[in-house]
Amino acid sequence: MLKIGIVGGTGYTGVELLRLLAGHPQAELRAITSRADAGTPVSQMFPSLRGYVDLKFVHPDEAHLDQCDVVFFATPNGIAMQQTRALLDAGVRVIDLAADFRIKDIAEWEKWYGMTHACPDLVAEAVYGLPEVNREKIRQARLVANPGCYPTAVQLGFIPLLEAGLVEAGSLIADAKSGVSGAGRKAEIPTLFSEAADSFKAYGVAGHRHLPEIRQGLANVFGKPVGLTFVPHLTPMIRGIHATLYGRVRKDADLQALFEQRYANETFVDVLPAGSMPETRSVRGSNLCRIAVHRPQGGDTVVVLSVIDNLVKGAAGQAVQNMNIMFGLPETTGLNVIPLLP
Amino acid sequence: MLKIGIVGGTGYTGVELLRLLAGHPQAELRAITSRADAGTPVSQMFPSLRGYVDLKFVHPDEAHLDQCDVVFFATPNGIAMQQTRALLDAGVRVIDLAADFRIKDIAEWEKWYGMTHACPDLVAEAVYGLPEVNREKIRQARLVANPGCYPTAVQLGFIPLLEAGLVEAGSLIADAKSGVSGAGRKAEIPTLFSEAADSFKAYGVAGHRHLPEIRQGLANVFGKPVGLTFVPHLTPMIRGIHATLYGRVRKDADLQALFEQRYANETFVDVLPAGSMPETRSVRGSNLCRIAVHRPQGGDTVVVLSVIDNLVKGAAGQAVQNMNIMFGLPETTGLNVIPLLP
Amino acid sequence: MLKIGIVGGTGYTGVELLRLLAGHPQAELRAITSRADAGTPVSQMFPSLRGYVDLKFVHPDEAHLDQCDVVFFATPNGIAMQQTRALLDAGVRVIDLAADFRIKDIAEWEKWYGMTHACPDLVAEAVYGLPEVNREKIRQARLVANPGCYPTAVQLGFIPLLEAGLVEAGSLIADAKSGVSGAGRKAEIPTLFSEAADSFKAYGVAGHRHLPEIRQGLANVFGKPVGLTFVPHLTPMIRGIHATLYGRVRKDADLQALFEQRYANETFVDVLPAGSMPETRSVRGSNLCRIAVHRPQGGDTVVVLSVIDNLVKGAAGQAVQNMNIMFGLPETTGLNVIPLLP
Amino acid sequence: MLKIGIVGGTGYTGVELLRLLAGHPQAELRAITSRADAGTPVSQMFPSLRGYVDLKFVHPDEAHLDQCDVVFFATPNGIAMQQTRALLDAGVRVIDLAADFRIKDIAEWEKWYGMTHACPDLVAEAVYGLPEVNREKIRQARLVANPGCYPTAVQLGFIPLLEAGLVEAGSLIADAKSGVSGAGRKAEIPTLFSEAADSFKAYGVAGHRHLPEIRQGLANVFGKPVGLTFVPHLTPMIRGIHATLYGRVRKDADLQALFEQRYANETFVDVLPAGSMPETRSVRGSNLCRIAVHRPQGGDTVVVLSVIDNLVKGAAGQAVQNMNIMFGLPETTGLNVIPLLP
Repeated sequence: MLKIGIVGGTGYTGVELLRLLAGHPQAELRAITSRADAGTPVSQMFPSLRGYVDLKFVHPDEAHLDQCDVVFFATPNGIAMQQTRALLDAGVRVIDLAADFRIKDIAEWEKWYGMTHACPDLVAEAVYGLPEVNREKIRQARLVANPGCYPTAVQLGFIPLLEAGLVEAGSLIADAKSGVSGAGRKAEIPTLFSEAADSFKAYGVAGHRHLPEIRQGLANVFGKPVGLTFVPHLTPMIRGIHATLYGRVRKDADLQALFEQRYANETFVDVLPAGSMPETRSVRGSNLCRIAVHRPQGGDTVVVLSVIDNLVKGAAGQAVQNMNIMFGLPETTGLNVIPLLP
Repeated sequence: MLKIGIVGGTGYTGVELLRLLAGHPQAELRAITSRADAGTPVSQMFPSLRGYVDLKFVHPDEAHLDQCDVVFFATPNGIAMQQTRALLDAGVRVIDLAADFRIKDIAEWEKWYGMTHACPDLVAEAVYGLPEVNREKIRQARLVANPGCYPTAVQLGFIPLLEAGLVEAGSLIADAKSGVSGAGRKAEIPTLFSEAADSFKAYGVAGHRHLPEIRQGLANVFGKPVGLTFVPHLTPMIRGIHATLYGRVRKDADLQALFEQRYANETFVDVLPAGSMPETRSVRGSNLCRIAVHRPQGGDTVVVLSVIDNLVKGAAGQAVQNMNIMFGLPETTGLNVIPLLP
Repeated sequence: MLKIGIVGGTGYTGVELLRLLAGHPQAELRAITSRADAGTPVSQMFPSLRGYVDLKFVHPDEAHLDQCDVVFFATPNGIAMQQTRALLDAGVRVIDLAADFRIKDIAEWEKWYGMTHACPDLVAEAVYGLPEVNREKIRQARLVANPGCYPTAVQLGFIPLLEAGLVEAGSLIADAKSGVSGAGRKAEIPTLFSEAADSFKAYGVAGHRHLPEIRQGLANVFGKPVGLTFVPHLTPMIRGIHATLYGRVRKDADLQALFEQRYANETFVDVLPAGSMPETRSVRGSNLCRIAVHRPQGGDTVVVLSVIDNLVKGAAGQAVQNMNIMFGLPETTGLNVIPLLP
Repeated sequence: MLKIGIVGGTGYTGVELLRLLAGHPQAELRAITSRADAGTPVSQMFPSLRGYVDLKFVHPDEAHLDQCDVVFFATPNGIAMQQTRALLDAGVRVIDLAADFRIKDIAEWEKWYGMTHACPDLVAEAVYGLPEVNREKIRQARLVANPGCYPTAVQLGFIPLLEAGLVEAGSLIADAKSGVSGAGRKAEIPTLFSEAADSFKAYGVAGHRHLPEIRQGLANVFGKPVGLTFVPHLTPMIRGIHATLYGRVRKDADLQALFEQRYANETFVDVLPAGSMPETRSVRGSNLCRIAVHRPQGGDTVVVLSVIDNLVKGAAGQAVQNMNIMFGLPETTGLNVIPLLP
């Protein structure tokens, strides 16, 4: 049994980690921390977990995280980088669901996240936790930077095309739509029900923090920089990301076969039959990414549709997948949750 | 492994049965029938099941249901009563998720359902599948009448009070609110998104088919007839029933203790701490019924709040629970799905 | 033209007052105050008003409210009672959309609202602004206490029965459901989209501030105290209240005729034909209350269904209606907004 | 007063026409037809209109449409082309809200709509009713082809760029998102609440009927054919279209000024300040199109955000705007509805 700690468990990635780990046969949840809610039973804050999680939130000082096998950070940006070194030194492996270790270029990270990085050397060591690209490195990693939600959906959609050099890499477009839970469990007016329901809007058009992360990931598989326009939108649903990706085709190819072959051995990436259009609800609650590739009217524009549950494959589920890989467990352990539809 | 057949699997109770049975370690799904969609892969109609259910819908004539251990009817009312006798004669056990076998009074059933009953003798034999009341009978049953969604939520809320004789049984009120999936997967205007979203309404105030079913169940535990006003409402959410129950207290008692004791050994009924108010999402996707009991301002009105997922404890989950009981399996087998929140 | 000021216009009642007054032919909006947002154009906070409202929010000290004909308070509870006397002394009429002047029993008010009242004498003077009961007094009033949203829907539903003495007044039940905008435009976790969407719950079962207000109003029309159980619920829609009211009938009567006669001359109360069940969307954006009365199965329980838009007839629209009455304008002036459906 | 007839008023464009025309001071609604619902009061089908519209649906044969000044067709495609000639011959002007007269290339129309056109000569005569392009022609028109909802939002967003020749016209991308009411009031499974709520998907990626309409309109303003990829999506809200438009900039220019100047005299097109991101709810219920133009990170991709209410500026509102122009009324008559927010 893996002894597990969670730092900062009062947000949506926290409760989702709890849901998945409570059903994980090799996981023993040891501690979940919260400064503000120390002493509160987890099931009081998240009544869905009554009967499944008996822990209380504890103050970080009393969590004995150094006795865990692995610690998940489900904290705001900037927390994990303060605490990771001590854990690694104590032999604990770390999976950060925030952005602290995602961007290799420290200056770029500091520009987008507006703070000085506390441990650039650990950024260099950290493995970017997208198993479909970095599985072998994750297996050896002490420290995994769990990808962002948009970056997961967008990268999985573009990777086959870029690896095969089939699109013009200078003018990619990612038009992405997210459910409101992507904004986190924070008391803010724009994500109130009465503000976000029955409406649709773009945000972060001038620049979103996930843009440099996506660019870095795509450049890695392509071998050189890519040009990307990324426009995220807020859609009135709780969970789900739908990325609609556009690229200009450079040469003819069987795109359907390309995608099917690329992901043939990936349990959590499902390439749909030609002509399909995935719904976000088809992955609700599960760690799947479902993808369809189109070439409308046989023109020179390729359209890729990629859907994930932002809280699962886009956060907690991918983190558990990474944990499974790091500890040599079957990759699907604890992740065999069938999507909830309707 | 139990060999399982499903008749009429293209509705929401059908897809929900499939989700639960696909994750049930003792279930082997043999056939799922649909006249209209014979030949269509299940995963084409319900993309959430891609990778989990490989069956195609088959025509009833080719389903060999008589070779199953148990057959679920997820059909419109009036179908199961035509086919059940042949299955029972072949040694197959039957669980009907429709209303064909729920009402013992045949004349009453025929009045509310507008058709002549095909097999009154089987109604007499059928066991009403509310395990919290009829567990021992279910264990022996060849034929189980799975309760309706509203009746499950309402009965579980009133039962402790009636068994203890603590409320005036002549003037009970059940004000119930259901998500739209309760209306089924039928092409009808009133349940279109643009009709049902962002609005709230009562329906069936003059009389709803679940009224005689609830009255019968409550009379059974009370020992004599009860008076009940039942007003169902449609609320703009997909899943969930919230029943708000009102009764006049006849004598003082510790209602909290009463409820806790009544359900102390019931895995799927969770009595919340005093002062709680359950949300429907706290049971989303799970077989739980969560209940809270209140006595506002210490007056003589008791208010019980009872929530279920209408498709799980209110339909498919309770059906699987009944199957587990009928075949001597642990009652929670295949039903350990943690609610999805948010 | 009436010169109008609004104190505290950054909430939902504020923006709704602005929408209605911007379309009111006799209203000249002079000032709208906000301490926190002074200097911000109204249309920046509420982009729906771009092109219709050119004002900026101003600091209260610079608003010159004493030069208005009427001032609306769309503030949190406890603000209007601090500022009303000075305005009245300056000859300004005041309509308070908060609760400061609604409860005549000062001790009762202080218990429910948790503060000491600043001006009990003005509470005594204030007229409770439910035109269907107090129209003549409103006409003369300097100070109107605009009713709460639940109290409006519940009182309009019970009034005909109580005035006629047709129900047992000791055991009334009001099961009320509100859209999320009723909670206001405040940054709080429970009303986030991801918390409130696709779920349903009761709240305030032990006691809600609108309970004493409803009891007072019903006692006034009944002539003596009434017994009322009031259970509010949160439903995942933006606007709308649906009150389902239960009472025990004391003697036979033509309830449909009773309701139709009571409201025959009320423009904003629409008694639906027998058998109807009003949807909240049928009044969305309008000042209407639509009501249906039922007696299920001819039993002794009367069920009244009453729907309003909580922000219009339950707040800003009723306030404008009161203003029209106070200044001798036709009652519908500026309120001829046809409900938005779908 | 204009005498007005509506053919086929039981859909969402029908009820929206009724809402707008009931509040139009120069409109006298004479007849609204429905074969299936002849005899039914309009307010029974659409309870929002109780008190505002007293008509009943009538059979087309009894509607005396030839005595109207103008007839709106709110019918499925293929109806208006059967009936328009007779009305024009009787001196009645016609506004078709369906697609019968939108596409000048008859072969193209027949390919996309799957039927033979009944009157190609009237297609040649018909004026495409986008006032921002064709105002003068509309003024003289006997027959107006009211634009589709997506085409309105997309064209208004691209027109300034194409007129100025500032984008590469060969590779435009329109990623559009629509509320569910865009699918009409038809009993179909994919638009049920339980199917469309809390989910997001693309549809019609291989080809949508609005594609040739948009291409025709853009080619008209550009002067030669354009290349366009158009991907529509279904988003879980009732009303609203959000078009996110992408083009590659050919040369530097002040795009903000370009848009502001282009629409300076257009009452119903609101160019937002630089940096804005319009929400669909900011136009809910109104005839406005709000537009923002962006150039992320100063790169060579221009991003235009364009929002409308699909039932108003995308259908019924634009139809009334066209009527006003055709009959010399001020363009805003009856269209001064302030958007409903929240």
